[in-house]
Amino acid sequence: MDATGRLEISQGESFIDVKSFFESAPPLKNSDSITQKSSPTCCFGNLLVSGNAKSVGVVCVTSGGTTVPLEQRCVRYIDNFSSGNRGAASTEYFVKAGYAVIFVHRRGSCQPYCRYLPEDSFLEFFEVLNDSEIQVCHPHATVVKKAIKEYHSAVNGGFLLKLPFTTIFEYLQIIQVVATSLSCLGPRGMFYLAAAVSDFYVPWENMAKHKIQSAAGPLDMRLTQVPKMLRILRTDWAPSAFCVSFKLETDSEILLQKAESALRKYQMHVVVANELATYKREVIAVSLDGKISIRKQSEDADVEEQLIKLLVEKHNKYIECCGMG
Amino acid sequence: MDATGRLEISQGESFIDVKSFFESAPPLKNSDSITQKSSPTCCFGNLLVSGNAKSVGVVCVTSGGTTVPLEQRCVRYIDNFSSGNRGAASTEYFVKAGYAVIFVHRRGSCQPYCRYLPEDSFLEFFEVLNDSEIQVCHPHATVVKKAIKEYHSAVNGGFLLKLPFTTIFEYLQIIQVVATSLSCLGPRGMFYLAAAVSDFYVPWENMAKHKIQSAAGPLDMRLTQVPKMLRILRTDWAPSAFCVSFKLETDSEILLQKAESALRKYQMHVVVANELATYKREVIAVSLDGKISIRKQSEDADVEEQLIKLLVEKHNKYIECCGMG
Repeated sequence: MDATGRLEISQGESFIDVKSFFESAPPLKNSDSITQKSSPTCCFGNLLVSGNAKSVGVVCVTSGGTTVPLEQRCVRYIDNFSSGNRGAASTEYFVKAGYAVIFVHRRGSCQPYCRYLPEDSFLEFFEVLNDSEIQVCHPHATVVKKAIKEYHSAVNGGFLLKLPFTTIFEYLQIIQVVATSLSCLGPRGMFYLAAAVSDFYVPWENMAKHKIQSAAGPLDMRLTQVPKMLRILRTDWAPSAFCVSFKLETDSEILLQKAESALRKYQMHVVVANELATYKREVIAVSLDGKISIRKQSEDADVEEQLIKLLVEKHNKYIECCGMG
Repeated sequence: MDATGRLEISQGESFIDVKSFFESAPPLKNSDSITQKSSPTCCFGNLLVSGNAKSVGVVCVTSGGTTVPLEQRCVRYIDNFSSGNRGAASTEYFVKAGYAVIFVHRRGSCQPYCRYLPEDSFLEFFEVLNDSEIQVCHPHATVVKKAIKEYHSAVNGGFLLKLPFTTIFEYLQIIQVVATSLSCLGPRGMFYLAAAVSDFYVPWENMAKHKIQSAAGPLDMRLTQVPKMLRILRTDWAPSAFCVSFKLETDSEILLQKAESALRKYQMHVVVANELATYKREVIAVSLDGKISIRKQSEDADVEEQLIKLLVEKHNKYIECCGMG
């Protein structure tokens, strides 16, 4: 059998995995509301009217880690480490570049315009004067005011729509809904998939119904591979959108090889390779044009500023190539 | 061999498990600082001076879920579901009852005085007027001002010390440090262990060094039982403290039986039994005196208000019995 034949078989298997994943998943709550909110004619319609567009495009930024429940009435779950800082920072730079952003984020993860605010207890930033007036404690005043202003400007201007997820089931169901909504934008739609997505899960029907009891010695678990949705996103859900995925590894020796393999296998336009130890200051953008290493330009700068600049350029070229420029 | 003999053997085994758990754990960061902060002579010293005590006691409230890393350079981990709402609410009622609280909480979980504030983006609560003045959006003004005032009053009065954890390793190491610090208070110390603590873990030396690769089919994992620290807390770390633990189950049929078994096995003073489906409105306090069912008194009330009232009564009786009243 030749290479093409093998590819077809492998894609066929992948579609079956995806079908069985969705069939066995618990139904997505608020699915209709998400479809309606993420429809460009609804939330971003005013930004995207043909020739007179205020927004240069719509990008779906995913952010934070997905969870895999180990019990149907869930007490325990497997989680993927991700603060959501990358997605939150990138969202700010996409809005600055004129994009409308659908921010698909893990509940409780880092939010755009909140990155410099305290995580646990923002109450420490404020004090109440004369029993009535709220004041920001002095050293933080500038950063808090900037955050409040920029956040309201993005939301009120229609440049930011936030959709939360927790489990891998919710995440993939939301991506499917958003992709279908955005497919009408053709190449002006973008996916920037920075979320840390689970590779393994327990199919719903195999899951323990109640909390797993600890009395009976060690716990043996078998986890199934999550089907690779990137391929389906490209071939089926949003075939014309510009797609950027991320590859995070802890072992630098296999990182670039894995990023290049993802580029080919899932037909991504760009794969951003990053290493756990250095991801805040350096990433490598891998595409068919080659590899571009991006470092943050100063201690206070964000590596996302340069990364988004590069991706916006590549996206513009892509739109031109598709004859939509 | 008689019953006493068996008990000794079983306790011996348990101590060996605990020893090997701590020996294999990664070292606790900031251990010295935690020891210093949680020392009653340091943080709560002014509250606890002999006859003239402002604080009626010190309670260590634990809150939120612990994580179990699956990789040494951790990307994936197992987590226990817990919003931290119970611990945060209970902390507020303990402070109200005159206790100094050491709030040992999962990073990012619900914080005292923040329960009625938005989780994701508190920025929505605020607006900036005339480019300078911050104002709380009208419908939220009362609740935000109350939160800021009560929080500052608790912290500035020396009634609230917050110590964060993420992993099961950090959690148990912090409990040990705090227990040792509080042991000098004798029966006036209390442990209120509301955190959702992992039952299973992967010993550090068995852990994958790098991110587990997903290419090689399903993932089989063997998890080891976390040694039961409640017993060591009672017998070794803080033998005179009043100890309250929690039992959460999803299956109501086994709940009370498991709570009673924990009461006996770990010599707790009270075990609070709660069921996942109803834990916000009902708990059962199980002690040697019997079972007391506690429900919240109205839709807006907290079940913790009644629970803490009952526990404070029981703690006072306990202090009297120990001849310290």
